[in-house]
Amino acid sequence: MSFRVHVRVMPREGLLDPQGQAVEHALGALGFADAAEVRVGRAIELEVAAPTRPEAEARVREMCDKLLANPVTEDYLLELEEA
Amino acid sequence: MSFRVHVRVMPREGLLDPQGQAVEHALGALGFADAAEVRVGRAIELEVAAPTRPEAEARVREMCDKLLANPVTEDYLLELEEA
Repeated sequence: MSFRVHVRVMPREGLLDPQGQAVEHALGALGFADAAEVRVGRAIELEVAAPTRPEAEARVREMCDKLLANPVTEDYLLELEEA
Repeated sequence: MSFRVHVRVMPREGLLDPQGQAVEHALGALGFADAAEVRVGRAIELEVAAPTRPEAEARVREMCDKLLANPVTEDYLLELEEA
């Protein structure tokens, strides 16, 4: 089976996020003072072939741990859907 | 009301995504040959205050059109949840 996976890699809660702060500042300057707590990370989409959903998820977690996310400074979240 | 918004900004379908290609190549080199169609974009999280959900969504779309996404090369997707 083939799964379409959406990965969200975000700076870990509690760590500084200078990119998020810059975006929040820029939004404020554009008149969007109602935006707060802005954080910026990476969105990664991929297709993965695996016999079952748990195996697909385990496989993508391995990809995140080894390449897609920095385990010291980032957290990630997965969403899988059957492709 | 306050809404927590997840924005996914991705390179538009059909456009080259060199960052996605680089990640796909790196995954292959690490033994993840089962990953395909890799695309890399930005994940943005923010809180926005608005009286209703449609107004919050409209407000964030405006932020995307003006700052968060490049309207020529990128598409974006929103998910809102009540904070």
